[in-house]
Amino acid sequence: MRFDVLTLFPESFNLVMSDSIIGNARENGLIEINTINIRDFSTNKHKKVDDYPYGGGSGMVMTVQPIYDAFMSIVSSVGYKPRTIYMSPQGKVFNQKMAQEIKCYDHVVLLCGHYEGIDERIIEEIVDEEISIGDYVLTGGELPAMVVIDCVSRLVPGVLSSEDSYTEESHYNGLLEYPQYTRPYEFMGRKVPDILLSGHHANIEKWRREQSIERTLRKRPDLMNKG
Amino acid sequence: MRFDVLTLFPESFNLVMSDSIIGNARENGLIEINTINIRDFSTNKHKKVDDYPYGGGSGMVMTVQPIYDAFMSIVSSVGYKPRTIYMSPQGKVFNQKMAQEIKCYDHVVLLCGHYEGIDERIIEEIVDEEISIGDYVLTGGELPAMVVIDCVSRLVPGVLSSEDSYTEESHYNGLLEYPQYTRPYEFMGRKVPDILLSGHHANIEKWRREQSIERTLRKRPDLMNKG
Repeated sequence: MRFDVLTLFPESFNLVMSDSIIGNARENGLIEINTINIRDFSTNKHKKVDDYPYGGGSGMVMTVQPIYDAFMSIVSSVGYKPRTIYMSPQGKVFNQKMAQEIKCYDHVVLLCGHYEGIDERIIEEIVDEEISIGDYVLTGGELPAMVVIDCVSRLVPGVLSSEDSYTEESHYNGLLEYPQYTRPYEFMGRKVPDILLSGHHANIEKWRREQSIERTLRKRPDLMNKG
Repeated sequence: MRFDVLTLFPESFNLVMSDSIIGNARENGLIEINTINIRDFSTNKHKKVDDYPYGGGSGMVMTVQPIYDAFMSIVSSVGYKPRTIYMSPQGKVFNQKMAQEIKCYDHVVLLCGHYEGIDERIIEEIVDEEISIGDYVLTGGELPAMVVIDCVSRLVPGVLSSEDSYTEESHYNGLLEYPQYTRPYEFMGRKVPDILLSGHHANIEKWRREQSIERTLRKRPDLMNKG
């Protein structure tokens, strides 16, 4: 699967996306992440990428030209228009189901905004979908794009080991995870629950299931109602 | 405001958190972001930081010792226990109001998990609050911690210019932003709405407000119900 990221801050992307599972998936050719610096496409002699908003107001608005030309450089190189997502506070709130849907596209372009926003007409012209990662205000679309890439990449076959994938399933069943314990048996007077040392797999499974339900009811009752 | 991040992947943090507004805030001493590599505190001769889960199951669980010792290194150096947040899929879903609350602490420790999770007892021992950034599965707590730091830092006085801060307010009133336009007047046959060129500020304000309401009703009706 291929991700092209249109951004004013390409440097940080590559480093973050080189760690851990995603880094391995890139090395193994399972996913490809390219960053395109929008500023490189500015035809302005000062490489400007923003301008004052029509109608007044504070802040600057990203102009259409550099974004459009950056986008078209991708289109011309591949010969088709890839699925294009704008990371936007105005978007639909991202969730695991949307990640599954995005995974169905072989090639996705993620547009990251900055400043006060971007000219509405570029959204109308090139964007298929607007996504927000949550109800909070961030500096730009870069962190949200990383979040989407991380989440979607994990669903690409081969990125997670079969063991990891299996565990992943439990996150989809609408319950929070049960508590985990590892060695040592005792830490600061806190011992591992006896049941986990019993060796009785059916009972352990039952206890974990009960813990998941109890936790979900206590911490995220809204998830139960959804399910 | 000070953020200490306990992580197995400290390298990426500094780069991402050096861009743009957050980078300037760090340079100006308004916020301080330190990363602490949990692995450096492992007393295991192979610097191991994880082990098999008690009771069986796939994946590995992060052990208490390196996390606890990394945390205590902060406590001993400052002489108090800072507010400690675990970035967890089991946490309360982050929002702008929680960012406001976190901002009230001068010093926050963010613990980033990896693998299948972390030993429950470290959460009981050192964690004050568990936060999730949304209902999706990510590789680790690093991106979520960056999201929280970005969002909270923007609320620290001086980080945003007074102009930016003013605009920020509009994100708190429970409505989505109105569409923005900048030069050129025409792009791919799409013109800037006439009202924005009228120079009539009251009418522009009214139009923008209507656009915000219309968008919110169309894209995020749930926000209206909350408000």
